[in-house]
Amino acid sequence: MNILIAGLGLIGGSLAKALKPNNKIAGFDKEEVLEYALKNNIIDEKAERFDIYDFVIAALPPLTTIDFLNNNKFKDNSIITDICGVKEAIEKAIVKRNYNYVGCHPMAGKEVSGIKNSSEQLFYGACLIITENADTDIKSVETVERIYKQAGFAKIIKCSAAYHDKVIAYTSQLAHIVSNAYVKSETINNYEGFTGGSFQDMTRIAALNEDIWTDLFFLNRENILKELDKLINSLKIQENALLKNDRQKLKEALKNGRIIKQSINK
Amino acid sequence: MNILIAGLGLIGGSLAKALKPNNKIAGFDKEEVLEYALKNNIIDEKAERFDIYDFVIAALPPLTTIDFLNNNKFKDNSIITDICGVKEAIEKAIVKRNYNYVGCHPMAGKEVSGIKNSSEQLFYGACLIITENADTDIKSVETVERIYKQAGFAKIIKCSAAYHDKVIAYTSQLAHIVSNAYVKSETINNYEGFTGGSFQDMTRIAALNEDIWTDLFFLNRENILKELDKLINSLKIQENALLKNDRQKLKEALKNGRIIKQSINK
Repeated sequence: MNILIAGLGLIGGSLAKALKPNNKIAGFDKEEVLEYALKNNIIDEKAERFDIYDFVIAALPPLTTIDFLNNNKFKDNSIITDICGVKEAIEKAIVKRNYNYVGCHPMAGKEVSGIKNSSEQLFYGACLIITENADTDIKSVETVERIYKQAGFAKIIKCSAAYHDKVIAYTSQLAHIVSNAYVKSETINNYEGFTGGSFQDMTRIAALNEDIWTDLFFLNRENILKELDKLINSLKIQENALLKNDRQKLKEALKNGRIIKQSINK
Repeated sequence: MNILIAGLGLIGGSLAKALKPNNKIAGFDKEEVLEYALKNNIIDEKAERFDIYDFVIAALPPLTTIDFLNNNKFKDNSIITDICGVKEAIEKAIVKRNYNYVGCHPMAGKEVSGIKNSSEQLFYGACLIITENADTDIKSVETVERIYKQAGFAKIIKCSAAYHDKVIAYTSQLAHIVSNAYVKSETINNYEGFTGGSFQDMTRIAALNEDIWTDLFFLNRENILKELDKLINSLKIQENALLKNDRQKLKEALKNGRIIKQSINK
């Protein structure tokens, strides 16, 4: 299939690499990125126009995705997907047009960005979330599934955009908020040698792109605020137990967390 | 050398396995653990008494370590080390006796415990922290370094117990508090498929042993409270920016974290 990938960053570049063996890939990005992609055989050609492709992947930040999908001309009945970490805001913002939109969120990433860090193996074994609503074209979803499976995805979950946004606020966005906050102690300057892995795990995703993530957080504001509030409350329960020298309360709080963690590992 | 390892859990068992090729290892633990250790060739013999060993490793939880070191008879001028995650409280609680105490904290671990999860490779490439004070016997420290290098440690840091406790409150203990608190959202029941790794990293160490960690947290209470307070404040800065729809403030907070993380990665 002829596929247009708009945005050849970590995700777009990795999708290009993973889909190229079975498809013809046209790329759209800044000139220097396109030159790199052509030189390294990541794409087959530069896209000169957008309205000749049956399958378009907008691998762009959220606000850029909305702009891209609303303000360009696409082929009649073409399938257009995105990769955004929020789905309801994208779904609502896209004006109903001549194409079939299928919301996607590939559950794969790295703590580094850009085409130079892209990898054809990024999606091997990963989960793809597809969001659907009453207007979603089922045939288009089937095509999206078929194409994405070629990229190595091992599992596909279909749900509403609202459900996606609620869960992802907790599993991904809150984790980025915590990791980014965790590094803000001056003790960090002395960390070397003083960790067996906990510190690295906790701070792996701290260096997020503040432009993209500010947009993501505000596009999923209500869900994130709920999760952040719950986390701060849980931390305060432990803090208060320590402050009040209440060993039993601290032990109960820790036990509670241990039991939850063990139950999801089963 | 004849080495006694008291406590054959994850760390003690791993030390036994790693040191056995070059030393004769006597073990002390519950009978069933000793039987397992003998049967699987992890130790050479059960320790019948403690006062015949030149080198003793107390691989025990903090309060048990204090009790073990204060209430048993050891050989004159023997070297006794521990593995506790707090050092000042241990140092202060041990009554000056006929042996040379050298405080140790191996910077290696797993999210699982017990001798069955122990591994002779646990310490390969890891850092060993040795705490010293004015009373520390330098010859004993040299022996500790020599023995522990046999277990695979690649780096040794020597510092005061107070310095250790301040840094470890941040790099390890706070991470355990956060991980344990992170799992306490009911959204956790829907997490499967909705993560590319951030959630797993954030919750890897959540299932801690509440008995041991309650002791550890209270033995390093002041340092932990300081770090926990800083983290909650950093989280609240992000929460407030979201609550007040202040994009610029959220972006600045995220940028601040990104720059710190990037600076420690250099």
